[in-house]
Amino acid sequence: MDDELIQRFADLIVGFGANVQPNQIVAIGSEPGKERLTRAIAASAYRHGAKFVDVATFDLHVKRARILYADEQSLDFVPSWYGDRMLALGDQRCARIGLTGPVAPGLLDDLDPVRVGRDHMPFLKESGEVVNARTTNWTAAPCPTPEWAALVHPDLEPSAAYALLWEQVAHLCRLDEQDPVAAWSSRMDRLTAVAERLTAARFDALHFEGPGTDLQVGLMPSSQWLTARFSTIDGLPHMPNIPSEETFTTPDPQRVFGTVTSTKPLVLSGTIVRGLKVGFEDGRAVEVTAESGGEALAALTQTDPGAARLGEVALVDREGRVGALETVFYDTLIDENAASHIALGMAYGFALADDADRARANASTIHVDFMIGSPEVDVTGLTNGGERVAILRGGDWAL
Amino acid sequence: MDDELIQRFADLIVGFGANVQPNQIVAIGSEPGKERLTRAIAASAYRHGAKFVDVATFDLHVKRARILYADEQSLDFVPSWYGDRMLALGDQRCARIGLTGPVAPGLLDDLDPVRVGRDHMPFLKESGEVVNARTTNWTAAPCPTPEWAALVHPDLEPSAAYALLWEQVAHLCRLDEQDPVAAWSSRMDRLTAVAERLTAARFDALHFEGPGTDLQVGLMPSSQWLTARFSTIDGLPHMPNIPSEETFTTPDPQRVFGTVTSTKPLVLSGTIVRGLKVGFEDGRAVEVTAESGGEALAALTQTDPGAARLGEVALVDREGRVGALETVFYDTLIDENAASHIALGMAYGFALADDADRARANASTIHVDFMIGSPEVDVTGLTNGGERVAILRGGDWAL
Repeated sequence: MDDELIQRFADLIVGFGANVQPNQIVAIGSEPGKERLTRAIAASAYRHGAKFVDVATFDLHVKRARILYADEQSLDFVPSWYGDRMLALGDQRCARIGLTGPVAPGLLDDLDPVRVGRDHMPFLKESGEVVNARTTNWTAAPCPTPEWAALVHPDLEPSAAYALLWEQVAHLCRLDEQDPVAAWSSRMDRLTAVAERLTAARFDALHFEGPGTDLQVGLMPSSQWLTARFSTIDGLPHMPNIPSEETFTTPDPQRVFGTVTSTKPLVLSGTIVRGLKVGFEDGRAVEVTAESGGEALAALTQTDPGAARLGEVALVDREGRVGALETVFYDTLIDENAASHIALGMAYGFALADDADRARANASTIHVDFMIGSPEVDVTGLTNGGERVAILRGGDWAL
Repeated sequence: MDDELIQRFADLIVGFGANVQPNQIVAIGSEPGKERLTRAIAASAYRHGAKFVDVATFDLHVKRARILYADEQSLDFVPSWYGDRMLALGDQRCARIGLTGPVAPGLLDDLDPVRVGRDHMPFLKESGEVVNARTTNWTAAPCPTPEWAALVHPDLEPSAAYALLWEQVAHLCRLDEQDPVAAWSSRMDRLTAVAERLTAARFDALHFEGPGTDLQVGLMPSSQWLTARFSTIDGLPHMPNIPSEETFTTPDPQRVFGTVTSTKPLVLSGTIVRGLKVGFEDGRAVEVTAESGGEALAALTQTDPGAARLGEVALVDREGRVGALETVFYDTLIDENAASHIALGMAYGFALADDADRARANASTIHVDFMIGSPEVDVTGLTNGGERVAILRGGDWAL
């Protein structure tokens, strides 16, 4: 990737994704190995009038040392200033930008999964509060690294793998369009129209059916289907994920039944969970197994009472660019846009129109998405009257 | 440098320099390019029982973008959570570790020096408060990088320069001794004895005389000569600088007269100041010139009323290991230990025994050391009775 592509990407992230305004403080969450894009984003933010760019770098190698050596009782400790800073970002109406993509895949795989599961950093419970309060204009975007490229394209030479990953990310983010912002606006118009039809249908539940999957996810009476066309409480539009191809809502955490099998691997703070199978009873994930890495997720579901219940359900068609690449990216931000998914843990209250429903939405310190959709998984809406309405068939909207 | 040397260094920094205690939070200040030593320090801290290791990384490239593009009026802005975190580190009795050594020498040299001078980050005024309150056990140590090595040894191949810099840093830090802690204890015993004799002498002023230098620095009645053998208010010993070869005190900010010429280059947030000459009248630096980079320092002296007055005077003999290497390291932490020096800006109140003197000590948001000593510069103590007492002659203690 050349400097021009990096700058186009930085400008899309800053100008369209986060929609940085003059005089805003801009917080960037980055990792060692992502310096080049981070610096380009910082420069773009300052060109857009930012008052200060605050880069917070999280190093998974330091987390590894903690899990290896720290006292087990201290592994869930978070210094007070982490949460204080996050809340201040909201109070001071800052912009937030996060860069995804694994820089050290598998780094925690050989560690005790119970200890791994106790340390949730860099995730902060306050970030969920700030998202729900809609006080920050924020976005997350993928940052290719050589280590990530080797994971996605293990059969290629390192330099070819890195070049291909950049090419794919540029395609997914519509950077290969003459006007990436116009391309995103058009796609979001389409998804927003679907979301409006889903909301209007007022389904009581969704039924997922496919290989290893027979799952019913109850919806709330006031569940609103949303897209990544967000705006802050001050009316500032932003796009929280680039790329985003999903429409999602907040389910009923008490009414989830059946069994679901993941359709993509899940990267969990360095542990890769493959072949995940989760059994639900009365809304709770009572059985978590996997071909590999399942212990880390099972430990996470023990974090708090809400960690074993659903906080999100999302539908993804196959018109988007992610699914068409038929590539496993090992990055939830991208992979979740290839397939319908559910998330254990914290719910987004803003996807519920009614206060009583919001009070019943799932609460947790975790939020872990995993992919359950594919063209082989049918999604059907169940109405209060007992009707079955086709929503997704073969990956296409049937609604 | 091999893994064993890195680990010995990390253990010296954590176990002796900062003297990290079980259950402490440890804050590390680092930069991109210093990951290897930073991770070894984090691992050592966790092995010493740390509760959490908080790495804050400052990227000079992001600072460059700020100075290039941000509104000039915003350049001295610092987000609230930077100071809040620093004060919390004190309140919560944390350990602090900083890694020095330039990673991008000269990166700001082509920028407007007035704009460069307005942005003091990563320096925080709260760090001075916390140092003065003696609530944290802390240390700063040098971290060799290839970019720094190329600056120090421009005539060598990059890999040879890097290897030599590591070898020199290991020597300076007594890592080539079988027991580095014992070596440091012996050296600090020697310097502490000199400091005690200087304090007992109760000089009214010091007189520096050498090429381009004829400077009198007034002392306070209660000025105490200290070494880097520090302890916190809770009695926890630590060594704030590794290496350290100096004894220092807090001067009278009103009584500094004459002219001084720097004897080593000064690296100032990416700008290298060479051939610095400062004229003092009634304690104030009224004339600041340099062969290069002088504008950045001149702008810094305009920061606040105390920025043009002295906050520190330090004496260095030639028994230490830094001077003997006859190398300019472009890192104040090391270079100041080759030579006697003075600092513009904030004074350390704890070097004054008397409340009235402490109230008169210099206050500023800056603290900039520059080297004024060499074997060619004589240092003489002036007593209240008008006597002249030799302190340093040819770099050796004469006291």
